[in-house]
Amino acid sequence: MGLAMAVLMAASGLQAHVNDTLILQNLGSEILKNSQAYANLRVLTKDIGSRLSGGKGAAMAVAATAAMLRKAGADTVYTQPVMVPHWERGPNEEGVAVFDDNQRQRIRVCLLGMSVGTPVNGLKGEVVMVRDFDELQALGKEKVTGKIVFINYPMRPELVQNGYGDAVRFRSSGPVEAGRLGAVAVVVRSVTHALDTFPHTGTTRYDKEVTPIPAFACSTVDAEWLSEKIKTQRQPVSLYLKAQPRSYPDVLSYNVIGEIRGSVYPDEIITVGGHLDSWDLGEGAHDDGSGCVQSIEVIRAMKALGLKPKRTIRAVMFMNEENGLKGALAYADSAESRKEKHVYAIESDLGAFSPVYITLGGTPTQNERVRNWLPMLRPYWVLLMPDGGPGADIGPLRRLGPMVSNMIPYSQRYFDYHHAASDKLEVVNNRELELGATALAAICWLTSEWGVGD
Amino acid sequence: MGLAMAVLMAASGLQAHVNDTLILQNLGSEILKNSQAYANLRVLTKDIGSRLSGGKGAAMAVAATAAMLRKAGADTVYTQPVMVPHWERGPNEEGVAVFDDNQRQRIRVCLLGMSVGTPVNGLKGEVVMVRDFDELQALGKEKVTGKIVFINYPMRPELVQNGYGDAVRFRSSGPVEAGRLGAVAVVVRSVTHALDTFPHTGTTRYDKEVTPIPAFACSTVDAEWLSEKIKTQRQPVSLYLKAQPRSYPDVLSYNVIGEIRGSVYPDEIITVGGHLDSWDLGEGAHDDGSGCVQSIEVIRAMKALGLKPKRTIRAVMFMNEENGLKGALAYADSAESRKEKHVYAIESDLGAFSPVYITLGGTPTQNERVRNWLPMLRPYWVLLMPDGGPGADIGPLRRLGPMVSNMIPYSQRYFDYHHAASDKLEVVNNRELELGATALAAICWLTSEWGVGD
Repeated sequence: MGLAMAVLMAASGLQAHVNDTLILQNLGSEILKNSQAYANLRVLTKDIGSRLSGGKGAAMAVAATAAMLRKAGADTVYTQPVMVPHWERGPNEEGVAVFDDNQRQRIRVCLLGMSVGTPVNGLKGEVVMVRDFDELQALGKEKVTGKIVFINYPMRPELVQNGYGDAVRFRSSGPVEAGRLGAVAVVVRSVTHALDTFPHTGTTRYDKEVTPIPAFACSTVDAEWLSEKIKTQRQPVSLYLKAQPRSYPDVLSYNVIGEIRGSVYPDEIITVGGHLDSWDLGEGAHDDGSGCVQSIEVIRAMKALGLKPKRTIRAVMFMNEENGLKGALAYADSAESRKEKHVYAIESDLGAFSPVYITLGGTPTQNERVRNWLPMLRPYWVLLMPDGGPGADIGPLRRLGPMVSNMIPYSQRYFDYHHAASDKLEVVNNRELELGATALAAICWLTSEWGVGD
Repeated sequence: MGLAMAVLMAASGLQAHVNDTLILQNLGSEILKNSQAYANLRVLTKDIGSRLSGGKGAAMAVAATAAMLRKAGADTVYTQPVMVPHWERGPNEEGVAVFDDNQRQRIRVCLLGMSVGTPVNGLKGEVVMVRDFDELQALGKEKVTGKIVFINYPMRPELVQNGYGDAVRFRSSGPVEAGRLGAVAVVVRSVTHALDTFPHTGTTRYDKEVTPIPAFACSTVDAEWLSEKIKTQRQPVSLYLKAQPRSYPDVLSYNVIGEIRGSVYPDEIITVGGHLDSWDLGEGAHDDGSGCVQSIEVIRAMKALGLKPKRTIRAVMFMNEENGLKGALAYADSAESRKEKHVYAIESDLGAFSPVYITLGGTPTQNERVRNWLPMLRPYWVLLMPDGGPGADIGPLRRLGPMVSNMIPYSQRYFDYHHAASDKLEVVNNRELELGATALAAICWLTSEWGVGD
């Protein structure tokens, strides 16, 4: 192009960025002063509570968030049908350690999600404690058959950023690995940095080749106690475990979607989302009521300010992230069959802590373009934009080719509450929740205004 | 220099940075696995409690932190005498709002630090509410004389990073500005984002030209209530206020210092510190027990690993940051009179939250040199190193010319607890505390190993 044109474009780009900075300031002020995010989270956590797929809470949350999106001023609010699994833990889960001279001590356990149950009257077995799969393999069938395997792998404190990934494999694969060697049940140490009395649940999985065995988590305090008992008692320690979950046929449920229709490119879609379902032990406040109410807040703030994004911005409450990901799959399937054009997608599913990173998972050219916006985002604590993929719910959408992102908050406390009864509204700080919403609103505005290129 | 020499130096620099990365990993693991920081903080907060200068808690904290530094393995532990003010609030501070038909409602107030008291039986006066100094000036002497001024300025929610600086001027200067117009007392809304029932104290100041008047803070919940009452009552609302503080003669107190002597350049000093004194309403957990125990942890971790820093690393517990800064002044005076060579100094006094920034306050050349280390610090959440000055305690040392820094943690919750009864051990997360210590240890190691240049 000619020089004059290039200068003109650069100047108009500059002007545009001045405008963007002002718009981001307005979005930030609107959210930090008038946010409905915490009030909406109160509805999801206190009025409704836990929202495991297929249950009553999840159904109530579908209706409630649709209403919130309407109140937020979304141009369109609709639901997207999806069949989801329906697993329920029964009441009165029990764990009791039996040691020297038939002494008994209750330990705090819960079933892992999707686990099979024990016989009606429970089961009892001698405990073998291992630290990891290497130690389990070393014991072999002979020493494991008929026993209860206790995997006491602590979430490693020295891992600052990936301790969860390192430790969660024992929760995911423990039942298969222990079952393969003939164990009658498995108890894993909860995946959390906290030394607390809450068992932390989460999905586990089985393998067709291996008979499913009941799979429990125990609290870290109980894991420490049990470990000490096993090491110091004269006689082997036994565990008595009881749980009666039920698996029902799949249930019709919904993703909930609210849109602001793009003023210039309505067919180009930007997705911002969280997941509506939550584990049954807590209130699903950090995980992931917060991602839902932040996404709703993006819509509300833009509408409150009368902003008209050029591209369509879609807040999506995904159903069934925790134990199936059926909502995310349905969303991507629908987009594909409708031949929708998805340009950008981001989710918030790592807790309502202040944002620190937004990962960039586009082409190198896209990543470079979006990274240039970083100075505009820094006032809202988005400090870095490293290359990186999306979270679980945006994952399936990748096959449609959008640029994808994940909002990474400052997360040292997240696993203190993760999948446990402690994940309640009270442990969410309203300003941190709002800063996350601000960061999401800012990146949605910029991607909508400028696109992300190719 | 010759090319061969340059290549050699570059290669040795590379090797050195590989070594540094390993040493930082070791420091991180040592602190995140074996930290004494939280245990030490428990002593400062639970065994001792509040530590206002001149009081019993401060004296106990001097002895306790000296013992901690010895146990941490410091080569030398000593105290540095300093005369500090000694102000104590009396028991039974009282605030009562009196409104229509002599109804009464207690409001939660506390004296601001260093405030004068009320008459023994308290004082009563009609309230005039203003939002800021402009509104106060507009009222003028006629409408203010004999009244109690209520400054209801909320900490602005839309300010992400400097809301405290914006709001604290009413706490600092409210008594002078109201007193100048003839007010008999002043009540300021607590400087906090939280809507809570705690009055948040903090130092206020007087002016020789203006008669000192009693100065109170009320909780934000009470500020909201009182504001509503003032707006809706038919008759003027009055306040009854009572407080009997005592100001004693200055007291001999101490900074507490522990050193690892430099193995190569023992006369070059690196200071890492926090302040030992704390306001009297809480336990001084975030402010600033955490900065003290983090600094002690720097010493402990290096000693536990057998590291031998080239330059002297000095952990300093400054006395009297809150209401006088006498410790910081004494430390700088002593350094000056002993002609010490201070090369680098950093403090932690913004709460035990995970680090986000380390500011760089050296020459442009120094800042550039230190900023090059950022990739080594990022794993511990030191994400950026912007230019910027130190905190209050390092400030006086600037006249000796060291490069200075401030550790800026992720701080959205800090003012929830700041100077209030809620600043207790329970609101400190041990991992976040430890990550701060890790960042301090890392920057102290690097500055000690490489110096900061000129």
